[in-house]
This record gives sequence, structure tokens and C-alpha cells, in this order.
Amino acid sequence: MEKAKTCATCHGDEGISSIESYPNLQGQKMGYLMTALRSYQTRERSSGLAVLMQQQADALSDQDIADIAYYYSKLGSDANKQ
Amino acid sequence: MEKAKTCATCHGDEGISSIESYPNLQGQKMGYLMTALRSYQTRERSSGLAVLMQQQADALSDQDIADIAYYYSKLGSDANKQ
Repeated sequence: MEKAKTCATCHGDEGISSIESYPNLQGQKMGYLMTALRSYQTRERSSGLAVLMQQQADALSDQDIADIAYYYSKLGSDANKQ
Repeated sequence: MEKAKTCATCHGDEGISSIESYPNLQGQKMGYLMTALRSYQTRERSSGLAVLMQQQADALSDQDIADIAYYYSKLGSDANKQ
């Protein structure tokens, strides 16, 4: 999914991160992912590496957030997850 | 795991939440989970439902956080995930 290409850099092509600090996104709840992205936009998530996600989230429209959250919520649902 | 019983109330016995607003924790990165819990303690996560997690996280020691994060990071690793 085109919009998720940037996300994949840190969160993995399949939404499984290779870095301890970065969460897996594969199969995560859509509602939660949308709230998380909005919280970076509003700076209600502000610890440590949050600044990286604040910058990413600032570039997203509401539709982008919905599309990306939907994409990751469904990712891996037809395959076994690691 | 005894310490995770409270978590399971919202995040599911297997770390798969049944509620859109609450994230799945099964197989999540340990480092990320520890940072997230600490961020609730420090109020660097403060949006919406974060107040619920702030209260929970306040009751946890550093060892509790490490134990719970380890538990969820390993949960489901020997089974297929939903």
C-alpha cells in the first residue's frame, strides 16, 4: 500500500518491526492505530522517540490515517504471523 | 501470569483485545511495551483513554513493567495468532 511505504521503513514490510523500540503493527486494532496517530499529531504522545512519529503523523490527512490504520489492521490476517 | 491478570481484562487473555480502542499486546516488542508503560507513568501519553493506563501503570514497579512486557512479547510465539 503506497501510503504505508514510509511506515514500513521502521515497522517492517509485513508490519513486524525488527527493532525493539518500534512496535509491530500487523493485525493491530484499527481504532487504536487511528487514536495513536492522532495523538502524535496533537502531541499527546511525546516521550522519547515520539518526535519521530509526530513528524510522520503531521504529514497525514484524516483519510490517510484511516487508510493506514485499516491496512495494518488487516495485514497478516490471511497468513500466520510471526 | 499473575501480574498480567489485570491487563487481560481489557487486552484479552491471549493479548488479543476484543475492543477497537484497546491494542493487541500479543507478540508486541518488549522494548516498545516497556517504553509505553513508562510513558503512561510520566504522563507523556495523555490522550483520551490514556488516563486508564496512567492509573494502571502507576501501580507498577520497574520489575513489574519488565515482567509484563516480557510476558506479552513472548505470548503467542508458539501458536498461530489471530
